[in-house]
Amino acid sequence: MFDPNEHQHMRYNPLRDDWVLVSPHRMLRPWSGQVEGSATEAVPPFDPDNPLCPGAKRASGITTPNYKSTCVFTNDFPALLEEGPTPPQSDDPLFQSAPALGTCKVMCFHPKSNIYLPTMTSDEIQEIIEEWIRQMKELGAKYEWVQVFENRGAMMGCSNPHPHCQIWASSFMPNEPKLKDKTQLDYYQKHGRPMLEDYTEKELQRKCRTVFSNEEWLIVVPYWAIWPFETMVLPIRHVKRFTDLDSKQKIALAAAMKVLVSKYDNLFKCSFPYSMGWHGAPTGSQLEMDCKHWTFHGSYLPPLLRSATIKKFVVGYELLAQSQRDLTPEKAAKMLREQSELHYTLTQ
Amino acid sequence: MFDPNEHQHMRYNPLRDDWVLVSPHRMLRPWSGQVEGSATEAVPPFDPDNPLCPGAKRASGITTPNYKSTCVFTNDFPALLEEGPTPPQSDDPLFQSAPALGTCKVMCFHPKSNIYLPTMTSDEIQEIIEEWIRQMKELGAKYEWVQVFENRGAMMGCSNPHPHCQIWASSFMPNEPKLKDKTQLDYYQKHGRPMLEDYTEKELQRKCRTVFSNEEWLIVVPYWAIWPFETMVLPIRHVKRFTDLDSKQKIALAAAMKVLVSKYDNLFKCSFPYSMGWHGAPTGSQLEMDCKHWTFHGSYLPPLLRSATIKKFVVGYELLAQSQRDLTPEKAAKMLREQSELHYTLTQ
Ligand SMILES: O=P(O)(O)O[C@H]1O[C@H](CO)[C@@H](O)[C@H](O)[C@H]1O
Ligand SMILES: O=P(O)(O)O[C@H]1O[C@H](CO)[C@@H](O)[C@H](O)[C@H]1O
Repeated sequence: MFDPNEHQHMRYNPLRDDWVLVSPHRMLRPWSGQVEGSATEAVPPFDPDNPLCPGAKRASGITTPNYKSTCVFTNDFPALLEEGPTPPQSDDPLFQSAPALGTCKVMCFHPKSNIYLPTMTSDEIQEIIEEWIRQMKELGAKYEWVQVFENRGAMMGCSNPHPHCQIWASSFMPNEPKLKDKTQLDYYQKHGRPMLEDYTEKELQRKCRTVFSNEEWLIVVPYWAIWPFETMVLPIRHVKRFTDLDSKQKIALAAAMKVLVSKYDNLFKCSFPYSMGWHGAPTGSQLEMDCKHWTFHGSYLPPLLRSATIKKFVVGYELLAQSQRDLTPEKAAKMLREQSELHYTLTQ
Repeated sequence: MFDPNEHQHMRYNPLRDDWVLVSPHRMLRPWSGQVEGSATEAVPPFDPDNPLCPGAKRASGITTPNYKSTCVFTNDFPALLEEGPTPPQSDDPLFQSAPALGTCKVMCFHPKSNIYLPTMTSDEIQEIIEEWIRQMKELGAKYEWVQVFENRGAMMGCSNPHPHCQIWASSFMPNEPKLKDKTQLDYYQKHGRPMLEDYTEKELQRKCRTVFSNEEWLIVVPYWAIWPFETMVLPIRHVKRFTDLDSKQKIALAAAMKVLVSKYDNLFKCSFPYSMGWHGAPTGSQLEMDCKHWTFHGSYLPPLLRSATIKKFVVGYELLAQSQRDLTPEKAAKMLREQSELHYTLTQ
């Protein structure tokens, strides 16, 4: 008899149109490989040498404003510039290049360095959401895609402990959203409903992958998750874009995000590293298209596997062949569901 | 005037049918983030507690043979088992699973732990190539895909310092080879020639991305490389599969691999971490198909960016939107090309 928590199988990812290999029996494997540093070092609330702190002088010579809630400025070392010469056209299919214009912003979440979502007030988290929406509106008017993302923790390449995220807006649709656009459109044309609206409805019934839900949001470890504790944040009332959220949805999103991060941190009693970001219908020239197939959603991609210091390595087989996981999504969801909603530093 | 070494642009990857963002101007960015441990610790030639050493007892109770050159055995904690129950069929497009059977082998390169390609003789490296081919033949008779890959270094999730690789054979074509199969077939149907045969010819002429070449092999940083010092190993005389190499090609491959790893290690004077692996025409039921569109090739995917301890983080924007690089492939190729072919530990 097949038991998905015990027997190897593959699962289909309808958003990427590919597969993940699930090997639950490999959970017994001992680990004698690399152990990561865990993020527990105390950060002072203010450090005049930290360029993200209010009033600090940055490498570019610019002074960061004396902000009181959130603060957005252009990255001093942006991967995308607003202007630049156009690469020449080539008719060789093996050496194709294309123009890439855009802008990269840094967004501080809070004036204090030693505060994060679990220790922020609901109002403060709502301020972050409002700022994301303002940025999406402003940059989305000009650019085809606006990627809001956060790298949390040194393990995820984050080079500054001050709570912040990044916003990269581009003149092109990047690979991942382009793929999701296609798969969601195919699904819509075949089934007459947005893929992720159907998915949300079914996960609300099945419950086995639910981490948390409130009246407006469902957080699940998706059926096709790659990262051990990967989650998706899905709206219960269908919306296409960040900018479409009403105030009830915004308030409930702030609450859901606070609970999710608290549960993550509680799991291994550490500042849980991850990359996270938001995906919704494209912007720029596509603002006027109907994009009915799109559902706005968030993705959290955390690398930790077994403890605060042991991560899942996405390496040889994963890079050259296919994503692979040991822990099943259902087990991961159960582990997160069972964590307290209150952050461990607040319970003492 | 557009200069690819100075101005941002995108490059098309014809093997994955997607794009990479190139931001050469970001090379100036200072790094204050995570610094990795560098692999310089001396390893003893023999350690009775290391399960990969000849005669050592493994966790499974099995004793590793007293081997003299290479040695292959089944992984004690395999991600793929040869048998298992079949997952049930579902007609819900959002919850699809599929059977996955296979086997995972560990292959030791050499009886000594403190030896690696740069310090092996040509005969020893040829023995590794012969063993790879034997395994491809044996496992390929039964399985659709045989993935030979190596994770080198703790940074790449390798948990044992003894020189070794892994071979995972599966009843299914994994995502990456499936994609390469499609893109190479499309190209063949359109142009009447294997994509990578055309590519090799053009890179041999252009020379700017060449790291090394001999009579049989070309090593380049591909035009569409993602990792800072990523390389591809391409046959100059077209072959579809590992098992098709003749003895001249095998001898020249051993030489090319030795030079490549020596150059890698010389770059930052360290044991250069990477994941590497081989891709060729599929096996199993596809052994009898003609697969003319396939070219056998190797890929080296090393994470280091600036030094032995500073890597490129593939995180937020990369995971959620698109691969991005600062250093151009041409600059990376030049840096590797200029390294000595002799390993730095051998020059003193
Ligand atoms: O089997 P190993 O070497 O212990 O495991 C290593 O390689 C595997 C295949 O790329 C990965 O799935 C693991 O995350 C990694 O730690
Ligand atoms: O801009 P940062 O935070 O210095 O850089 C970090 O995030 C970027 C976007 O995901 C990555 O390209 C970098 O590799 C990473 O270190």
